[in-house]
Amino acid sequence: MTEPLVLHEYGRSGNCYKIRLTAALTGQRLERREYDIMKGETRTPDFLANVNANGRIPTLQIGQRFLPESNAACCWLATGSDLIPQDRFNQADVLRWMFFEQYNHEPNVATLRFWLAWIGEANLSEVQRVNLPGKRAAGEAALRLMDEHLQDRDWFVGAGATLADICLFPYTHVAEDGGFVLAHYPAVEAWIARVKSLPRFIPMDA
Amino acid sequence: MTEPLVLHEYGRSGNCYKIRLTAALTGQRLERREYDIMKGETRTPDFLANVNANGRIPTLQIGQRFLPESNAACCWLATGSDLIPQDRFNQADVLRWMFFEQYNHEPNVATLRFWLAWIGEANLSEVQRVNLPGKRAAGEAALRLMDEHLQDRDWFVGAGATLADICLFPYTHVAEDGGFVLAHYPAVEAWIARVKSLPRFIPMDA
Repeated sequence: MTEPLVLHEYGRSGNCYKIRLTAALTGQRLERREYDIMKGETRTPDFLANVNANGRIPTLQIGQRFLPESNAACCWLATGSDLIPQDRFNQADVLRWMFFEQYNHEPNVATLRFWLAWIGEANLSEVQRVNLPGKRAAGEAALRLMDEHLQDRDWFVGAGATLADICLFPYTHVAEDGGFVLAHYPAVEAWIARVKSLPRFIPMDA
Repeated sequence: MTEPLVLHEYGRSGNCYKIRLTAALTGQRLERREYDIMKGETRTPDFLANVNANGRIPTLQIGQRFLPESNAACCWLATGSDLIPQDRFNQADVLRWMFFEQYNHEPNVATLRFWLAWIGEANLSEVQRVNLPGKRAAGEAALRLMDEHLQDRDWFVGAGATLADICLFPYTHVAEDGGFVLAHYPAVEAWIARVKSLPRFIPMDA
């Protein structure tokens, strides 16, 4: 594969960090192109026509083709690496945690980080304010489920790190930005330390 | 593979139908076990301990192992079939649409169906009521994105039906239960007809 890889991103987004982390762990170089989501730079006619019709980052550009959805981009990058297990059940189980991440975790844990640390509680809309308690409870349920799952294992699936860990890590390790208390989830805290000690790990602000 | 397959499900759920449709299209037999989500049957201590700690259907049981998340179960079932492309980019692009389905489509198109056709508009909670306009707009945006994508192609990825189509189909073809108007999305309507004419297709209430 010699096609150049370009990550269309917003650096502080955990969904973008997932892709950089997967690339780092698998030894692949990404060119980075930054868009300010707070200024609507992913909703311009040019972005919608040429990068992602869904108006969202991240999108991974592979040569002249564009791949939206962070977890799909991670799968593309990790193809053939140890981050995707060989075993058929484990492979599907990695996807199970990645779908959990996008359905139960990100819309709550990441959204509260965005609302509280970016927008600011005082600036929330009425709809956002009404949704705060539900998102708090759902985010805590997601972290609790992770904590229970990690009680007797080091990694989400199988004996080593997989994309399940890499895709759950970004928003979990900064969950306190959204008002979650990681000390309530000690197995998650221990797992965060394990992810950080993986060879070739890069931090979010690298 | 001779392990028996048991689908723990609620038959009227589109997420459960996805799995039955994938099994049908790939010629696999599923035993079905029904839970009434309206009566909390997926939140019992037994269900949480033995089927899915996340308290949700569908969960696909493969011998003695349990696989939650509908799209992960579809991937397991479709392994080695034509529903998953061989090409690396197309394989990731199928996942791209499956993540779109769970993030942008299901929480809006399926949730409005559940709220309006199951719970009933008169019985909605205050929080649900406040979220109606946002979910309507987001559901319409998801259907519009699908319609635009299908302007010049028959299937979401590549030249034939893949899991991208199978996983987007269930909640789309009953979107009118949630108050969406499919006639506004003619390319989606034509695609619905194509999916229904696939060999071995089964309807939702089969």
